[in-house]
Amino acid sequence: MSSLSQSIASVFGHEDSRSARQVRKRIRQGTWTSHTSGLASDHVQGNVVILPNALASDFLRYCQRNPKPCPLLAVSEPGSAQLPSLGDDIDIRSDLPRYRVWREGVVVNEPTDISPLWQDDLVTFVLGCSFSFEQALLEAGLPLRHISQGKNVAMYRTNIQTQGAGVFSGPMVVSMRPMKAAAAIRAVQVTSRFPNVHGAPVHLGDPSLIGINDLNVPDYGDAVEVMDDEIPVFWACGVTPQAALVQARPTFCITHAPGAMLVTDLLNQQLASF
Amino acid sequence: MSSLSQSIASVFGHEDSRSARQVRKRIRQGTWTSHTSGLASDHVQGNVVILPNALASDFLRYCQRNPKPCPLLAVSEPGSAQLPSLGDDIDIRSDLPRYRVWREGVVVNEPTDISPLWQDDLVTFVLGCSFSFEQALLEAGLPLRHISQGKNVAMYRTNIQTQGAGVFSGPMVVSMRPMKAAAAIRAVQVTSRFPNVHGAPVHLGDPSLIGINDLNVPDYGDAVEVMDDEIPVFWACGVTPQAALVQARPTFCITHAPGAMLVTDLLNQQLASF
Repeated sequence: MSSLSQSIASVFGHEDSRSARQVRKRIRQGTWTSHTSGLASDHVQGNVVILPNALASDFLRYCQRNPKPCPLLAVSEPGSAQLPSLGDDIDIRSDLPRYRVWREGVVVNEPTDISPLWQDDLVTFVLGCSFSFEQALLEAGLPLRHISQGKNVAMYRTNIQTQGAGVFSGPMVVSMRPMKAAAAIRAVQVTSRFPNVHGAPVHLGDPSLIGINDLNVPDYGDAVEVMDDEIPVFWACGVTPQAALVQARPTFCITHAPGAMLVTDLLNQQLASF
Repeated sequence: MSSLSQSIASVFGHEDSRSARQVRKRIRQGTWTSHTSGLASDHVQGNVVILPNALASDFLRYCQRNPKPCPLLAVSEPGSAQLPSLGDDIDIRSDLPRYRVWREGVVVNEPTDISPLWQDDLVTFVLGCSFSFEQALLEAGLPLRHISQGKNVAMYRTNIQTQGAGVFSGPMVVSMRPMKAAAAIRAVQVTSRFPNVHGAPVHLGDPSLIGINDLNVPDYGDAVEVMDDEIPVFWACGVTPQAALVQARPTFCITHAPGAMLVTDLLNQQLASF
């Protein structure tokens, strides 16, 4: 976190780095091309999937059937680069620090602007991300080891199958945070209030029960130690739709690059269900 | 309620009327063609909208943008009459007591079976309904006057506009229940736990603030008295998507007839978010 903070300080004044609009402005100008963790941290950030309209109905059904890994925050009109419910100045072609361009299920490029690739039939989906519930956990006094150690969260493919829809299917991907029992119970309470950013955990305890053989070997992100008096707690993860894209192999689609999220005007607290 | 109870008793034994599967069986056979209030009351019932696939993506976006009036419980595969996540024997062509067939935004028929009208491109949407949260309110000891008086709930068109999507837009329709202040506060708590069946109220107090001129003249359902020590409490209502259908005038669509819901295998308590 310290190196990221320095980097933030070099681009933003303290006030600016807390403003969603200022963060998007720096990103749109190309001044910020790194990940968005720690930026505008009171605000909701989102996973992004951009698909041709012919696949939109399948993907909407896929999200509806799998709300824990794929909590939909907004869907654009076909061909529109705007997302007015998330911020009135958003242009999805330029407002992510870095994108992934996929062809036939394979990443072919990671540009910082997709204006040259835009098509009139593209639909943008924005899905909730764990940054929001992590902030709620920290505010509740629950330490998160991957954050205190400056690591990316550990993520794993599981043997939990998502509910398929049209061309989309695949395994649920989960993120893991080690916690003492009392913290795990409190974490269930805190994250249950945020169904739009993955909500309550999907599993806790024995990893083998959901098809994870070795916690030391995550499929994505960085391994983090689980102490003897802790249990691993697993949440549905926004990487799940990317796993479904790999499996569906659409001719063309675009997503955010890992960690380079859309910073929205919504406040995390606006998503609390209670 | 007493006449309905007698009617239930004449068709169902006591046990059968509590079983979602037995209720669907009687409906499928054509033995039960009335409304479903009071049947299988531990189970989730759903509003139903059946649309050609060409409109499915617009309607999915409409529901995503308006989760309080349009909480999606399930969406079928195009052309499939099954809804396996709601009950493994469901056939949507025969499992509602009564349907409404719409052409160009006008109801043209109210059949009890739509098998002759089925098309390979139809997509079924099931939306949560207030029966589930009313049961939760009753279990919390909160009386509901329209139920104790055997009336349909009072519903009103408001000046709250839904977020449009494609061809779908229109005013939010709300249902109203009069309550003493302490009960209204408790009702906010109880219904907040059930975001998939309309969730927390959208308004309470002065009806004119949401464009309702006279509580004695509901747009749908029956008027119910508000006592001097009570305030009206308003929830988003599942009639909202029917108002959007009237406005969109699709060439062809099918909905449930008012009160004649899909009885699912889901338990109301399974929908509680906390």
